[in-house]
Amino acid sequence: MHPKEPEIHGFKAYKSLSEVPGKVDLAVLVLPTKIAADVLEECGKHGVKNAMVVSAGFAEMGEKGKKLQQRIIDVCQEYNIKMVGPNCIGIVNTRIDLNTTFFPNDAGPGFIGMASQSGSFVTQMFAYLKKFGAGFSQAISVGNEAMTDLTECVEYLGECPRTKVIAMYVETLRGGGRFIEVAREVSKKKPIVAYYVGGSEAGRKAALSHTAALSGSDALYNGVFNQCGVIRASSMAELFDICYVMGAQPLPRGNRVALLSHSGGPAACAADTAERYGMELARFSERTTEELLKVVPHTASVGNPVDITFNKDPNDYSRTLPSILMGDESVDSLFMYVLMPSHRVYQTFKTMMTDPDQARKAAEDFILNQCRDMAQLAPKYGKPFVGGSFYTRSEPFTKMLQDNGVSVLPSPERAIIALSALTRYAEKRRKLMAAP
Amino acid sequence: MHPKEPEIHGFKAYKSLSEVPGKVDLAVLVLPTKIAADVLEECGKHGVKNAMVVSAGFAEMGEKGKKLQQRIIDVCQEYNIKMVGPNCIGIVNTRIDLNTTFFPNDAGPGFIGMASQSGSFVTQMFAYLKKFGAGFSQAISVGNEAMTDLTECVEYLGECPRTKVIAMYVETLRGGGRFIEVAREVSKKKPIVAYYVGGSEAGRKAALSHTAALSGSDALYNGVFNQCGVIRASSMAELFDICYVMGAQPLPRGNRVALLSHSGGPAACAADTAERYGMELARFSERTTEELLKVVPHTASVGNPVDITFNKDPNDYSRTLPSILMGDESVDSLFMYVLMPSHRVYQTFKTMMTDPDQARKAAEDFILNQCRDMAQLAPKYGKPFVGGSFYTRSEPFTKMLQDNGVSVLPSPERAIIALSALTRYAEKRRKLMAAP
Repeated sequence: MHPKEPEIHGFKAYKSLSEVPGKVDLAVLVLPTKIAADVLEECGKHGVKNAMVVSAGFAEMGEKGKKLQQRIIDVCQEYNIKMVGPNCIGIVNTRIDLNTTFFPNDAGPGFIGMASQSGSFVTQMFAYLKKFGAGFSQAISVGNEAMTDLTECVEYLGECPRTKVIAMYVETLRGGGRFIEVAREVSKKKPIVAYYVGGSEAGRKAALSHTAALSGSDALYNGVFNQCGVIRASSMAELFDICYVMGAQPLPRGNRVALLSHSGGPAACAADTAERYGMELARFSERTTEELLKVVPHTASVGNPVDITFNKDPNDYSRTLPSILMGDESVDSLFMYVLMPSHRVYQTFKTMMTDPDQARKAAEDFILNQCRDMAQLAPKYGKPFVGGSFYTRSEPFTKMLQDNGVSVLPSPERAIIALSALTRYAEKRRKLMAAP
Repeated sequence: MHPKEPEIHGFKAYKSLSEVPGKVDLAVLVLPTKIAADVLEECGKHGVKNAMVVSAGFAEMGEKGKKLQQRIIDVCQEYNIKMVGPNCIGIVNTRIDLNTTFFPNDAGPGFIGMASQSGSFVTQMFAYLKKFGAGFSQAISVGNEAMTDLTECVEYLGECPRTKVIAMYVETLRGGGRFIEVAREVSKKKPIVAYYVGGSEAGRKAALSHTAALSGSDALYNGVFNQCGVIRASSMAELFDICYVMGAQPLPRGNRVALLSHSGGPAACAADTAERYGMELARFSERTTEELLKVVPHTASVGNPVDITFNKDPNDYSRTLPSILMGDESVDSLFMYVLMPSHRVYQTFKTMMTDPDQARKAAEDFILNQCRDMAQLAPKYGKPFVGGSFYTRSEPFTKMLQDNGVSVLPSPERAIIALSALTRYAEKRRKLMAAP
């Protein structure tokens, strides 16, 4: 609808709701703050049952705004309208191709269900998630939560079969008690990961002016999250790193990780990070050590991390070694530093084949087969398998690994931090399930 | 040289040093561990004064390896050979296009001087740094440091005029006392940033098997770094984030930061991170607040963070507002959340112009001018200006900002963490300069 224009971006625009043929499923209100309530009332009179108020200038803008917000709540209650917002950017549901935001969803469908107190952390994550080959199942920008709050979104996403993990961007939790109750139940079914920014004084003030949020201390929120199995992330990137691993990997039975690398530096970084984040480096069985020694060169280290230093047969690194480690009873999860610059594989095949196209095809097949073999390990052993590489998705090896189900993150540290979060969730979930 | 092949990758291979015409400036030894000392001795006899031993299997491999390492040290001392390694990957010097590693340097020349106890953290950073438009001035993989250690590299890079900031990957500091002495002096001239992974038990063990490093506790190393103004990073990504900002931005006079955003979520993240990392949110002068209010829409917040929520004239966001903030006496540095999807700028120009090529050119010019204006702010006010955006270098706006000197990092949190490190360095440097 538009008061003047007959057409917007090729779509017919109506002057009023009475002109619209058929039933209106959803009204998205992007208009001056002052007239929002009146237009919403018109919607109610025409039987619209779902609305989204994108406009800002409500409770986040002091007393006057609070009154305006109360008026739209009153209207919604009177006409039984389910409303998201105000001061939000809308919702995304990739199953029905619904996207009310003004950004195209580059990422496509995925398994992350997002409930966010920031609209930017829906829209600006489309391009971000695409970089990992990840995406949203659904995403909801809740804005001021006048009627639909984060807790309700978590409950809803808990029921969504395409949502394997729930991501939350939190400036405040309105009504903490009910959140704990809901999140405890949802956490038994699927993980919830929260990035909370209201714990510092500066964060609290920023949140207040952003979404009228009255935040609480870190200690309070850590207590809340802890009670209901919610994993806390310390940045937007970490939030999605963790969700990305949680949605794709099986739950580990314990915190004993095996680290596999062909370079000592990344291995040491992974080991250091693992300990800082509460993981234990697995002590391999004698049999494992013997089997490792059969495969690795003499310069290698077969402690944990396993650092092979170099390898002549790439199959050793991508198949034999990870299989040996995953098969060890004392290993709960595997981290692997992954790197195979495709141009070098191609060069190798070029020395063996005269036709460059044939060589390129052979190189691609070779890489794809390696990736597929690696992707079978996690389901085969029922243990999580994460990769770390500074070569991101523009490198075919990384892309093929990711597309085949290996969670490859952009550095050893980020991979280990995400794996440690999955491990903590598995532990918390066991406790929740055991509780009366 | 090669014992059998007459040619390798198109280069002539000699059977022995005596066949090589003219003086040999540098010998790079990539050969079986056992014969390294003998070949090095041959080099010595032929007057080679610089060598690099890439081969592994020395002190990092126990007693036998330690003896082999001592032999190459003896040979170098006898023939007065300056040696880097063993168990290293070589060096890079972008001024003279020298790269002894087996990776092409995608990144090109830059201002980061790297001294690393991991070869991978030289070679695998080429592609990584390219993503930021950054690069190495020089990079040295020190390996086991049999003769050339990190301290010597820091001293050397301190003198390099193209090196604006020194990055260190550290598993151990051999000879801590001399390091403190050297680093204190270098820190007065340029910043040193260190990523130390030997502080945990797991990191210590991994480092021992990697480069025979005997690491010390975090407390010990924090004390060492603190004494000599070295800034500690907590991951490889953070190491380069910090270097990237330090090499490009002026030193702030204090820790009072102004935060500017057009979205509330990123603003709240930036505020929360700033406080956690020791920054103070600047309290703007009355005049600043008045000037801000003249420009921003009524939904905006003009506290700190300044969150404009939306803007009609992009010049307000990229020129007027940052200028107002930078001009305030109570502001020491500026963080700005930056985002301008180029395709939308292009679409806007397309509605005004009939010729698509002309519209594209106009859009590019528009973005470039915005970026150039923003890039003038840091030098004009002598205050650091960092940007954060989830849109990386594949987005022209981010690329143009970076190429014009604005340090744009891949998220608000990472930008603030790097800015806080620059702020801490500025503070430490003032103390070092004031010390007797």
